[in-house]
Amino acid sequence: MFTCDFSKRGEKSLYEFLIETVKAKITNGSLKANEKLPSKRALASHLGISVITVQNAYAELISEGYIYSIEKKGFFVTELPFDSPAEKSRSKEKSRAKKSAEKNSSAEIFADLASNSIAQEKFPFSVWSHLTRKILNSPHENILKSQPFEGALVLREAIAAHLKSFRNMDVSAEQIFVGAGTEVLYSFIVRFLGEEKIFAVENPGYKKIAGVLEMNGAKIARTAIDENGMEIFALKKNGASVVHVTPNNHFPTGVVMTVKRRMEFLAWLKEDENRFIIEDDYDSEFRFSGKPIAPLQSSAEGQNVIYVNTFSKTLSPSFRIGFLVLPQKLVSPFKEKFRFCSCTVGALEQYVLASFLSEGFYAKHIARMKNYYRNIRNELAQQIERQNENSLLKISEENSGLHFLLTIKSNLAEKKIKSNLEKNGIKISLLSDFFSADDEKNSFADEKKIPPEKTFVVNYSGVEKQKIPQIVSRILQSVQQDF
Amino acid sequence: MFTCDFSKRGEKSLYEFLIETVKAKITNGSLKANEKLPSKRALASHLGISVITVQNAYAELISEGYIYSIEKKGFFVTELPFDSPAEKSRSKEKSRAKKSAEKNSSAEIFADLASNSIAQEKFPFSVWSHLTRKILNSPHENILKSQPFEGALVLREAIAAHLKSFRNMDVSAEQIFVGAGTEVLYSFIVRFLGEEKIFAVENPGYKKIAGVLEMNGAKIARTAIDENGMEIFALKKNGASVVHVTPNNHFPTGVVMTVKRRMEFLAWLKEDENRFIIEDDYDSEFRFSGKPIAPLQSSAEGQNVIYVNTFSKTLSPSFRIGFLVLPQKLVSPFKEKFRFCSCTVGALEQYVLASFLSEGFYAKHIARMKNYYRNIRNELAQQIERQNENSLLKISEENSGLHFLLTIKSNLAEKKIKSNLEKNGIKISLLSDFFSADDEKNSFADEKKIPPEKTFVVNYSGVEKQKIPQIVSRILQSVQQDF
Repeated sequence: MFTCDFSKRGEKSLYEFLIETVKAKITNGSLKANEKLPSKRALASHLGISVITVQNAYAELISEGYIYSIEKKGFFVTELPFDSPAEKSRSKEKSRAKKSAEKNSSAEIFADLASNSIAQEKFPFSVWSHLTRKILNSPHENILKSQPFEGALVLREAIAAHLKSFRNMDVSAEQIFVGAGTEVLYSFIVRFLGEEKIFAVENPGYKKIAGVLEMNGAKIARTAIDENGMEIFALKKNGASVVHVTPNNHFPTGVVMTVKRRMEFLAWLKEDENRFIIEDDYDSEFRFSGKPIAPLQSSAEGQNVIYVNTFSKTLSPSFRIGFLVLPQKLVSPFKEKFRFCSCTVGALEQYVLASFLSEGFYAKHIARMKNYYRNIRNELAQQIERQNENSLLKISEENSGLHFLLTIKSNLAEKKIKSNLEKNGIKISLLSDFFSADDEKNSFADEKKIPPEKTFVVNYSGVEKQKIPQIVSRILQSVQQDF
Repeated sequence: MFTCDFSKRGEKSLYEFLIETVKAKITNGSLKANEKLPSKRALASHLGISVITVQNAYAELISEGYIYSIEKKGFFVTELPFDSPAEKSRSKEKSRAKKSAEKNSSAEIFADLASNSIAQEKFPFSVWSHLTRKILNSPHENILKSQPFEGALVLREAIAAHLKSFRNMDVSAEQIFVGAGTEVLYSFIVRFLGEEKIFAVENPGYKKIAGVLEMNGAKIARTAIDENGMEIFALKKNGASVVHVTPNNHFPTGVVMTVKRRMEFLAWLKEDENRFIIEDDYDSEFRFSGKPIAPLQSSAEGQNVIYVNTFSKTLSPSFRIGFLVLPQKLVSPFKEKFRFCSCTVGALEQYVLASFLSEGFYAKHIARMKNYYRNIRNELAQQIERQNENSLLKISEENSGLHFLLTIKSNLAEKKIKSNLEKNGIKISLLSDFFSADDEKNSFADEKKIPPEKTFVVNYSGVEKQKIPQIVSRILQSVQQDF
């Protein structure tokens, strides 16, 4: 029977350390594919730990797919199809190539606070598997049929119900259009609205949005925002007739568009029926305090507000499913325009997601993730408070979304701090990285509103909790020290 | 124990009739969800049929998802998640609405020879389920990670190997780009090549191609074809710099581009490095006789030929997976252009398809489907020969793809024949439906080459075999009779 040297577990719990040990033995081949594992009772007595600890560890290993159980027979090591020697050597080769490419620019990455990755290991994989199996075991006419362009009805109904309960939005399944991620959806939007139109995007903002719109042929006007949201004044000046906004949680500043500004936007919309607002409601699931903010779409009374959201952020970026909510009056023209197109998402995924939503698993998952992310955020805040003896670091805009701003007091220039951080293994973005140079007027910086200089955007969704003390001390080190 | 009145089975085999009876009992609720079915032996003796017949029927019902088995416990009725009373009433409502919409235009459809649907019940569902489960049970870091834009490496490698063995194409995984169906891939192609270019498409041809290219902003030049393929003369006249062709099996005429014409096309390509050929190799899997035709891409020696194919036609239209093969020299520019885009296909589907390909299931499936379609085609041909006493019907171009041409001798005008057919429940397209009026010159008709008038395109891939005698007699009736 294998052993597990608990004396080496450090700060880890018995449960965590046992899981880690078994994984390592599977990965390094000392436990072979389909090999029987000791029974829970036998292993517990062998290691001198409780049966319940072994049981929980085995359950976790099953849910992560490392082992499987056969009723009345016991636990066995899974055959890992993607871990063949060929695959291993290939991935080694790739990581070598990657490393050599990165060598010149930076040290090994200890923590990536720049990308908005998510905690993928938290994905409720066993539930997803269960639902997939259930759909696969049911008569499959539905999933083999070509789906309507707008997406499977079951999924659109489930999304409508979700929007009702999560965002208090009153929309019908008919208004919903499912697509393989927001990029695909934006390409439909540009083709629908017409690329001759000027699309206003927020500056600062998430640069990928402008990139995707531009790639689809749209003309872009980068438009300043102030602490109330996108400046209506700047918008009117640049002559855009389509606006892309994140009114409920601006990235990266965290600004929430005020009610007054919202009313101004809706009034702007009413002036001309050829104007459109694209409301990107990304991250609205992860608001940590304060009243949830109703989307613009709900106050628009059927005006031209197109609502966009995605499941990639809440589930996993590898699921390519996003959706639009169109105002009622655009539903028929949109359908008519794309009537000969196929839906871009496979049927099986649509049916599984529909079950995931309608059987309540999504709501549970969001609640769990919110908790998890709050925890990470709190740990970061506490560590900063604890280590921040000279008050060099200041957090702001930490209540919504999966990022906050970190303002740094330092004699070093912000570019220098950033490069120090990189040398220290911390990948991070400057708030100023999100500003585009070619905007006419950047009131955000001009008028000495937030942000001050030396402000960083901390995306903490992909951070591992146990690394947080180290991350904070590395940040402090980079701020003070000249490399 | 339930019974099965074999006296009512008509021409059906015991096996078929038993399956049908059990399905009906499940659907109408006389067999309840999770109800235990009689054992094979008990049912066989009860019905006076062989155990092997029951066994085969149960196996088929399992593979179609109507029942499931638990080892040593027996067979049980599956819980059908999408067949709730609410769903039923909804689908009733929908079919009612559909019927009332169709009432004015045509009778109920008995057979649809116009759409290129596939025999979805032949999809190897149990294998697909098995592979999906296997992937879901393996460690899931791979499937939760965001995939590279070009698609998962395992899938691209599997596609490259498949192209090698099926089409003798020598391409590397690096040249392959996976996308959510050909429509999505065409939209990337247009953006990559530039919409200011003129795209030549075949006339006659599959109209959806022109539609998709146009929707993406491309300018279209409908270009005549003759019996050797697209006319190079017509192409040179219209000034197109991009050509979309189906050289290996033109739809709908079945014309295969001759070697001489291929050489002319490649010479045209060489004249200017800003020229491109998009080779649509749809249906190449289903060539029934003659030597398989090498794709243009293989003779192009790295010139600008972009190869496109899809799995929607061979697997199921509800799987949205297609792929491009780029010539080596376009790989880097293509990646560079779309470097910030996400892959449009979910990771799980990519991994399952990769296993399906690399474990040989796809090749088996193609062989099986080829057999199946050949059977349907032969049955149609035989029935036509048998019933066609006055030689009113003539088949041509029946050796490749899943359609053939049917030329009809009749005093009625072709539009009249078509409407008669519709009244008789046969949905069918005229060959002339695939010609666009706005082409400069249609040599196909002009110069008295094929096709003659009154020629129909018979898509037989979705036809049910047992309906074939009826289909042929309805066609003959429509040709002779004036309604």
